[in-house]
Amino acid sequence: MVSKSAIVLLSGGLDSATTLAIAKQEGFGCYAMTFRYGQRHSGEIEAARRVACAMQAAEHRIVDVDLAAFGGSALTDVKLAVPKDRNSLNQDIPITYVPARNTIFLSYALAWAEVLGVWDIFIGVNALDYSGYPDCRPAYIAAFETMANLAIAKAVQGQGYLRIQTPIIEMSKAEIIRKGVELGVDYALTHSCYDPAPSGQPCGHCDACRLRLKGFQEAGLTDPLEYA
Amino acid sequence: MVSKSAIVLLSGGLDSATTLAIAKQEGFGCYAMTFRYGQRHSGEIEAARRVACAMQAAEHRIVDVDLAAFGGSALTDVKLAVPKDRNSLNQDIPITYVPARNTIFLSYALAWAEVLGVWDIFIGVNALDYSGYPDCRPAYIAAFETMANLAIAKAVQGQGYLRIQTPIIEMSKAEIIRKGVELGVDYALTHSCYDPAPSGQPCGHCDACRLRLKGFQEAGLTDPLEYA
Repeated sequence: MVSKSAIVLLSGGLDSATTLAIAKQEGFGCYAMTFRYGQRHSGEIEAARRVACAMQAAEHRIVDVDLAAFGGSALTDVKLAVPKDRNSLNQDIPITYVPARNTIFLSYALAWAEVLGVWDIFIGVNALDYSGYPDCRPAYIAAFETMANLAIAKAVQGQGYLRIQTPIIEMSKAEIIRKGVELGVDYALTHSCYDPAPSGQPCGHCDACRLRLKGFQEAGLTDPLEYA
Repeated sequence: MVSKSAIVLLSGGLDSATTLAIAKQEGFGCYAMTFRYGQRHSGEIEAARRVACAMQAAEHRIVDVDLAAFGGSALTDVKLAVPKDRNSLNQDIPITYVPARNTIFLSYALAWAEVLGVWDIFIGVNALDYSGYPDCRPAYIAAFETMANLAIAKAVQGQGYLRIQTPIIEMSKAEIIRKGVELGVDYALTHSCYDPAPSGQPCGHCDACRLRLKGFQEAGLTDPLEYA
C-alpha cells in the first residue's frame, strides 16, 4: 500500500471516473470498489473495469449485492420502465431511485476501509446536475460520516477519523467534465446510460444520458460515446 | 401486511429471538431478515429459520453478504482462531468483531423497509452484557437513525420517520432471558456459539457461549442447549 490510500466507489460512469482521477491527483493510492447490484445491464461493470485498469487502481473489487431482491426501482426491476425525456429533471425523485443504494455501498466501503486501514472513502455523488436522489446530498454524506466514526473499532479507539470525500458534489456536469479532461480521463471508457440499446450503445433519452449530453454541450466538448 | 409492520434483524441467537418476541408483543407484523455473511458455520442460519417459523414471521429473507471477502474477523476467516475463556469480557474489542457488520445489515434493512413502506427496524444489539463491539452502542444506533432519515426518499419527502428500535440494548443477559421466557421464546431453537463442535453443539468457551451461560445462571434458569 502506498503511504496514503483511499477507497473509491467506481460505478463506471462519468462522475465516479472523474472522482477517481481527483483522488489520484491528490496523491492517494486508490482501491476501487464496484457493485453488481442487479442492474438491468452489465455495461456499467465493464466500464468500471476499463476505468480501473486505465487509471491504475491498486486493486479493483467487484462486490455482489442483491438489491434486485427488494425491487422498488426501475434500475433493478425490468418490469418498471426507465423514464425518457423527463421534463422535471432535478424536481421529483424518479423511479430510477434505488432505496438505500448509497448507504449500502458506503457501508461495504467502510468495512473494506477498516480492514485495509484506510481513512478516506471517495464517492462521486453530485447534488447539482443530478436526478434528485436524497442520498447524494451533503447533509446525507455528513450524517453517514458521523455514523461511520461511531461504527468502526479503529475510529472509536481513536486511531483516526474516517472521511467521506465528495470532491464533485457541488460541481456542474460541465465542470466535472472539464476537470476530468484536464486530469486525462478518457470518457470513451465510461458508461452512463440507464437503459442502453441491445448494441450496448447509450439511449440518449434517460436522465443519465441527458445530464451527460447537457454537460458535454455546456463544457463546449463532444461526448466520445456513440449514441443509439 | 398487517396495519403495523416492522423489519426484525434475526441472527438466530438469543438476543435477536427475544427482540422478535418483543416486536410481536408490541403488535408489529414482523419481516425477519437474516444474513449469510461468510460465517464459519451455518448453525446460525438454521437457527434463524427455526425461530422465524416458530414465531410466525410474516416473511423471512436470507440475504447473502460476502463479508468474508474483506476478512479481518475471526467470525469470517477460518485462519483466525476464535478466542476462548477470555478474561477481559466487556473490555477490549475482540477479533470476533466484524468490521461495519451492523452498518451493512441495517443498510439492507433500510432498503427493504423503504420498499415495504415500513418505518420500524428492530435490532437486538446489547451494550451491557456484550463483546465490546462499537456498533452495538446507543450513540451508534442514534447516528444510524439520523443518517437513515436523510437517506431514503420517503423520509426526506416527509412521509414518515424511520426508527431503529433496540428494546434490549440496556438489559442484562439475565433480563433478556427472563423477558423472552415470559413471552414464550423457545431458546432451544436458538444458537449463540461462535465456534461450535463438528456435531453442531456449542463450545461453551467462546465469548458468546460464556455470556449466554452466565445469563441463564443469573436468571436462575437452565439453558436448554446441550454443550459439547
